[in-house]
Amino acid sequence: MSAWVLPDHIADVLPSEARHIEELRRLLLDTARGYGCEQVMPPLLEHLESLLTGTGEALDLQTFKLVDQLSGRMMGLRADTTPQVARIDAHLLNRRGVTRLCYCGPVLHTRPGRPHATREPLQFGAEIYGHAGLEADLEALTLALDCLRATRVADLTVDLADARIVRALLAGVPLDAAALARVHAALAAKDASELAALTRGIPAASREGLAALLSLYGDQGVLDEAEKCLPPAPLLREALANLRWLASQVEGARISFDLADLRGYAYYSGARFAVYTPGASDALVRGGRYDEVGAVFGRNRPAVGFSLDLKELVGVVAKPALKAAIRAPWGEDAGLRAAIAELRRSGETVVCVLPGHESEVDEFHCDRELARQGGGWAVRPL
Amino acid sequence: MSAWVLPDHIADVLPSEARHIEELRRLLLDTARGYGCEQVMPPLLEHLESLLTGTGEALDLQTFKLVDQLSGRMMGLRADTTPQVARIDAHLLNRRGVTRLCYCGPVLHTRPGRPHATREPLQFGAEIYGHAGLEADLEALTLALDCLRATRVADLTVDLADARIVRALLAGVPLDAAALARVHAALAAKDASELAALTRGIPAASREGLAALLSLYGDQGVLDEAEKCLPPAPLLREALANLRWLASQVEGARISFDLADLRGYAYYSGARFAVYTPGASDALVRGGRYDEVGAVFGRNRPAVGFSLDLKELVGVVAKPALKAAIRAPWGEDAGLRAAIAELRRSGETVVCVLPGHESEVDEFHCDRELARQGGGWAVRPL
Repeated sequence: MSAWVLPDHIADVLPSEARHIEELRRLLLDTARGYGCEQVMPPLLEHLESLLTGTGEALDLQTFKLVDQLSGRMMGLRADTTPQVARIDAHLLNRRGVTRLCYCGPVLHTRPGRPHATREPLQFGAEIYGHAGLEADLEALTLALDCLRATRVADLTVDLADARIVRALLAGVPLDAAALARVHAALAAKDASELAALTRGIPAASREGLAALLSLYGDQGVLDEAEKCLPPAPLLREALANLRWLASQVEGARISFDLADLRGYAYYSGARFAVYTPGASDALVRGGRYDEVGAVFGRNRPAVGFSLDLKELVGVVAKPALKAAIRAPWGEDAGLRAAIAELRRSGETVVCVLPGHESEVDEFHCDRELARQGGGWAVRPL
Repeated sequence: MSAWVLPDHIADVLPSEARHIEELRRLLLDTARGYGCEQVMPPLLEHLESLLTGTGEALDLQTFKLVDQLSGRMMGLRADTTPQVARIDAHLLNRRGVTRLCYCGPVLHTRPGRPHATREPLQFGAEIYGHAGLEADLEALTLALDCLRATRVADLTVDLADARIVRALLAGVPLDAAALARVHAALAAKDASELAALTRGIPAASREGLAALLSLYGDQGVLDEAEKCLPPAPLLREALANLRWLASQVEGARISFDLADLRGYAYYSGARFAVYTPGASDALVRGGRYDEVGAVFGRNRPAVGFSLDLKELVGVVAKPALKAAIRAPWGEDAGLRAAIAELRRSGETVVCVLPGHESEVDEFHCDRELARQGGGWAVRPL
């Protein structure tokens, strides 16, 4: 095998895409900053128990592990940044009030999340800590939509769900973790016969409620239907009312509901959202409330946030035009060097043609050149 | 041990430093772009043989290894980005002419490089491929200095060396890799008695030349002295002439020489430079020529470049002032929401005070507030 073959689902990002990702990265971070989000940079490596405590088995399986030569302890490469940011909020900042944080950096997955997914997503996300009310859920969702709009993603659909609905339906039902995972999988696959088989022995209200979830997806009518056919558990009613309010507040995007949706990370504890656009094979953004994550770090703060993969996003966004450069000769002439430096300071790209390379094709698109004119140097069109 | 304790030499980057690093990152990438460098993003993970072929033992020891669950093969986490960029130039771009590339991303080290160093540097670098002449060495060095100037590092000293000097002195001397490593270590430590012991059996010209290197550091006089006391080997004379020319071309920085310097990566093959500033415990930038790295990928292109660690750089650069934000109330009023959106579009940070948090101290410094005025909303000083 050649030395330059990369592992499966691992790829280089080459110049034209890398430039575009860099532009998107800046737009996203600047949009989050406009909301008062402070950027943090958690490390790629942490002790395994710190990285995985409280986050569920799915993340464990996705996490690369290795031994720390300095301590002999197991470390993990982050597969998701959100639990790290919750740790930072809980421990390092240790604030009482509302804290808004954002981040952008790579995460690594042992196996691709979907058939053609990368194992090295570039994760951007934002989180709001310290406010239990729905206003924070709305702000996180609004920020997510503004981020997508800033990058010119058009035609957005927001899919709303709530982790409390399935939880309320299964309250008091004795299911072990493995059985619960199978129920979640049957709900995600909308597999009615599998769900019926798995829930045969549980109380009728729960069984029928879960079965009803399978068809509770679509527009606003879903909420009316859910209020009619689901049991009157307070937690469930609150979740439905929350979704109705959130839907009423969102502007500039289609809203749909999928009350059986449980995809994404296991740590969500309340309203959840996913944002779709035509042309993307999966949701561009996933987010929601995850009030319990900070608890394992000793401070159970209300939390809501979202994340997206820039390598996914770049594939659905129109590529901006490249600003053309200026070609300049190489020389020791002080006037030439000063002219080049001045153009660069003003934001231009100046590509020096190194001696002997005059007949090569410019790799950088140049539409002007710096040429001797009278006693000095001037830019002229090519 | 608490779940929030990080491994040794691994740290979170908290808001005020993260914001500063993000600003420096943009300045560096934009400066490189001004020279016509195209950005690339190589992956964090590669097959081990791809990551380490041709780069020497030091990088091997610094590289975390893990097993790819998909293939069962060993992978490494990059400890240095330069060999990856050489692979991209050699294989993916496959261009004939001059190619300029740059990158910015984390690298990971099994052990800290120096006593207080991080094991997760944020490496920025630029490389020029395809030109064997000294003009490319000068361009790389000039770009490195412009990068530091863009970030307002003052008082720069460029330390010049050349990998060919020790190589020329040891040409034809039968030393195995271990013995060679000991000689290099004695030179780096300027340990005359150790060097004398290690070189006792080798020809007098080589032995005396190596011993002379130990005192060949300082200003331009070093080159005159070297021409007098070192053997007249052509490779060595060329290296000295190259250093003299480079020194004559650099502007706006003090120049010094250290002809015994062999620190940094083992792949350098020609002129090398390191840039120092008072207050930094080590060189801020290391770079030089490494013509042989691409060979293992099947294309031996001339190459010269440099890299630096942004986490190191941020420690010696004055922190820019934070632009203050605007505080706004939370509300469902359409005029309020439109006013907030408009301010954010214009580049302002607007922090919404979520209901119930009115008496909290702003985490983001706010010097203005959005308040109701007449029928609309207006910004006023706080």
